[in-house]
Amino acid sequence: MIPGKGWVRRIEVEKPSLRNNTADVERLEKSLMHEFGDGPVRIPLTVVQTLPSNLRSWEFKTKAVMFRDKASWIVIDLLAPDSEKAVLGAAIDIGTTRIEMALIHLETGVEAGKIGFDNPQALIGPDVLARIHYSSRPGGLEELNRLVIKEINQNLSFLCQTCGYEKEDIYLVTAAGNTAMTHLFMGVESFDIIKEPYIPGINIPDTMPGRDLGLDIHEHALVYLFPNIGSYFGGDLIAGILFSDLDKKEEPCLMVDVGTNAEIVVGSKDFLIACAGAAGPALEGGVSKMGMTAKPGVIDRVWVDPESREILFHTIEDQKPVGICGSGMIDLAAALFVSGRIDIRGKFSESACGKNLIEKEGIKTFILVDETLSGTGEPITLSQVDLNSLTSSKAAMYTILEVIVKNTAGLEFTDLKKFYVAGTFGSFINPVSAISIGMLPDIPVSVFEVLGNSSMGGAKLLLTSPDAFDRILNIRQSITYIELNVNQEFMNMFSGAKFYPHTDASRFPSVRVP
Amino acid sequence: MIPGKGWVRRIEVEKPSLRNNTADVERLEKSLMHEFGDGPVRIPLTVVQTLPSNLRSWEFKTKAVMFRDKASWIVIDLLAPDSEKAVLGAAIDIGTTRIEMALIHLETGVEAGKIGFDNPQALIGPDVLARIHYSSRPGGLEELNRLVIKEINQNLSFLCQTCGYEKEDIYLVTAAGNTAMTHLFMGVESFDIIKEPYIPGINIPDTMPGRDLGLDIHEHALVYLFPNIGSYFGGDLIAGILFSDLDKKEEPCLMVDVGTNAEIVVGSKDFLIACAGAAGPALEGGVSKMGMTAKPGVIDRVWVDPESREILFHTIEDQKPVGICGSGMIDLAAALFVSGRIDIRGKFSESACGKNLIEKEGIKTFILVDETLSGTGEPITLSQVDLNSLTSSKAAMYTILEVIVKNTAGLEFTDLKKFYVAGTFGSFINPVSAISIGMLPDIPVSVFEVLGNSSMGGAKLLLTSPDAFDRILNIRQSITYIELNVNQEFMNMFSGAKFYPHTDASRFPSVRVP
Repeated sequence: MIPGKGWVRRIEVEKPSLRNNTADVERLEKSLMHEFGDGPVRIPLTVVQTLPSNLRSWEFKTKAVMFRDKASWIVIDLLAPDSEKAVLGAAIDIGTTRIEMALIHLETGVEAGKIGFDNPQALIGPDVLARIHYSSRPGGLEELNRLVIKEINQNLSFLCQTCGYEKEDIYLVTAAGNTAMTHLFMGVESFDIIKEPYIPGINIPDTMPGRDLGLDIHEHALVYLFPNIGSYFGGDLIAGILFSDLDKKEEPCLMVDVGTNAEIVVGSKDFLIACAGAAGPALEGGVSKMGMTAKPGVIDRVWVDPESREILFHTIEDQKPVGICGSGMIDLAAALFVSGRIDIRGKFSESACGKNLIEKEGIKTFILVDETLSGTGEPITLSQVDLNSLTSSKAAMYTILEVIVKNTAGLEFTDLKKFYVAGTFGSFINPVSAISIGMLPDIPVSVFEVLGNSSMGGAKLLLTSPDAFDRILNIRQSITYIELNVNQEFMNMFSGAKFYPHTDASRFPSVRVP
Repeated sequence: MIPGKGWVRRIEVEKPSLRNNTADVERLEKSLMHEFGDGPVRIPLTVVQTLPSNLRSWEFKTKAVMFRDKASWIVIDLLAPDSEKAVLGAAIDIGTTRIEMALIHLETGVEAGKIGFDNPQALIGPDVLARIHYSSRPGGLEELNRLVIKEINQNLSFLCQTCGYEKEDIYLVTAAGNTAMTHLFMGVESFDIIKEPYIPGINIPDTMPGRDLGLDIHEHALVYLFPNIGSYFGGDLIAGILFSDLDKKEEPCLMVDVGTNAEIVVGSKDFLIACAGAAGPALEGGVSKMGMTAKPGVIDRVWVDPESREILFHTIEDQKPVGICGSGMIDLAAALFVSGRIDIRGKFSESACGKNLIEKEGIKTFILVDETLSGTGEPITLSQVDLNSLTSSKAAMYTILEVIVKNTAGLEFTDLKKFYVAGTFGSFINPVSAISIGMLPDIPVSVFEVLGNSSMGGAKLLLTSPDAFDRILNIRQSITYIELNVNQEFMNMFSGAKFYPHTDASRFPSVRVP
């Protein structure tokens, strides 16, 4: 952040005199507008009530903790000019599966601590659909809302305690989630999100008092939720675009968030085009779902030994293997393909696989780790059914990328100056593997850049950069959201993309088809 | 009010479709902006939470209860389109001595009931000065604030009960008071109001949630307090200007509010000039203070019998006389003067008064009612000291009127198309008497118009007319407030005005000096 240019600033208020005998609030507003920019200012009554004596005892200097809504600047609190009290903001990524939170010092931008925990709504339903269905039962919405708010309160309290702060030190919360998670966080009826014509209750929530949401933080704390584009394009992606600076790029870049769905944005300072993979049925329950989540013993990297042509792997914390994660799965498919163990149609080759390919309940199954080496006592395998699912997912991903970059934006993949991969799962994908199987386009590896949790990144950015407030609304207004029409043309493109790496191998010059 | 053009309106929201699949809140905002005017809209979270199901069960029609703040339109609540629930507003005149309240149906403008009661802060101090001093003691401000809020809550509750409504039916409160009363109502530190350079804590309070003020009404009710110009020119006068339409007049008019002080505004649609009598020390503890407040037996009218030249009077409810009220005092002075019982210097004439003039503790005292006819057993009298005080007051009033109309606005009294007399005390003044003693200028009696409680009138107007919101801020911004400089010129003018009716009798051609 730019020092002294955040939401907390030291300001000086003009002293009153017979020639300048306007009210204390008016002189305060004038100083705030001079410092932050013109516009109406809202000040909580409790701050107004003690303003006269505070200004005088502070010699007409103060440290102002500010935020904004759509229409006004808002004073959250005024502190003594030399106050050393911690002034914290909390950034929250409200994931469907996992919630991440970070505490940030609003004056310096320094991170004070962070914490992650499972979204407690998972007890009620693992995915958005199940939770929204549950929310329409009597009391269901309230229960889902209470679960997430309670868990966030407990974790904020725990995090503050751990880092040596009070929960009342949190003045500002910025949070991003998909449209459903945003609705459930606010306790807004969300049933129409999943029914044609797919109507969210709200797209652009305005800044809200934390107490209205039941957050147990500073009594005047404000909460900002990143806006949605629609039912299938949430605030987490707007936060990601903000974090990637896509809206400021001179030349076109692309960001893909690979989570439960894949959401893609391509653009620059001149345009932003987005689509969400939920519209592509092949991606539903996509790649990431097949794999396990990261824990000790999970296979996270797979490669072919250049000499022996054997398939080697690495497990987390070098434990005995217990399973394979999503990114490991992509590595595995790539290793199987480049070693000729699967053919360009994505089918296991009996000759190349040899004794590692068995038939199990009538389905060809590749044994990656036999039971003697496995940490579970069971072999770790990949069946043709699993592989077909992965093939569909990678084909859907490539097709959607092609539709948005080529057919919609009218660009070539080589025009992209940066290809950002966001999302927890996306962070671990090896681009070389993903290119090898034709999941990602064949562009130089240096163009790919891992963003990590970009939703969290965007939420943190807003805590430290007042400029981000307008950028968010501008991003929201300027995005063209493409509904993926799964028409005949799409299905033709999809069919080609189901080959390894593609029916048109010339698209993947760097991939040596065995 | 213009039917259907108040704060409560029935609106229709566009139904969603695949072609118009914006969020429910967005389509609601669009309808509200179409109905009320462009601008940001704020909607309470609880309204958003149930908006999707409500809109659908109401077939996308609703009755919207709205208000505004400086920056936004605010939804207070949404009701079913055919709801017959009462939607009430409360107008409050927060007088230093007395508080008046009225309940108004926001849909029709019809008054549902009204009530008046003494300001309970009078227990702590009779006037502004005493209360502000008390407010600076530890806990003093909170106590004063609690007293007035508690009494208002009790009276609102009682009024609602009496009229057959619930206190939750009150969605909007508009209140006007002087600067000190406004501060104490809000619980804002007000000590600097009375200390040079006379700085109010706040001049233009923004619309506030009723619950922040401790008002026990609808949970999302909003409260609007009329803005002050400064420490000595309060929201009650802005409300009065609004009520008198001074800001819309084609030709100059004048409004004077005669209460504890006298505040004067002269102007039209082109200009507004104001001054407050508190700056003129002669008016402090002025006319109205000398008299009793109205109650049975109080002398409220005095006149000279044209034949017998005797002084006659009327008492409230025709009871035996017990005292004399402020307006009766002006009548009495006029009767004494036109009958020659006091001379042009304002001194009792022994010859004209005869046996009715006695000497009491060395001071000449006129006996209006002797002990045999008095309801108290004591004679009702007017001493030379009382009369001198009245003379100073009437002279100060005339001088201030002259300064503001002639010296400041550059007008003649005859240029005034209307001379509005506001305030409870002002309502009872007989203009003929006031002209006779040289308190009010000698203009046709038809030019004078009694406004009554214009502060309450303005507060009621805002409850029924959304246009009034902008007018109030425009009035506030366009007023030129004149600090009365009590300089040599003023003192010379004041000396002339202490004569009956004036040293320059040609200013009062209609007054026959005996």
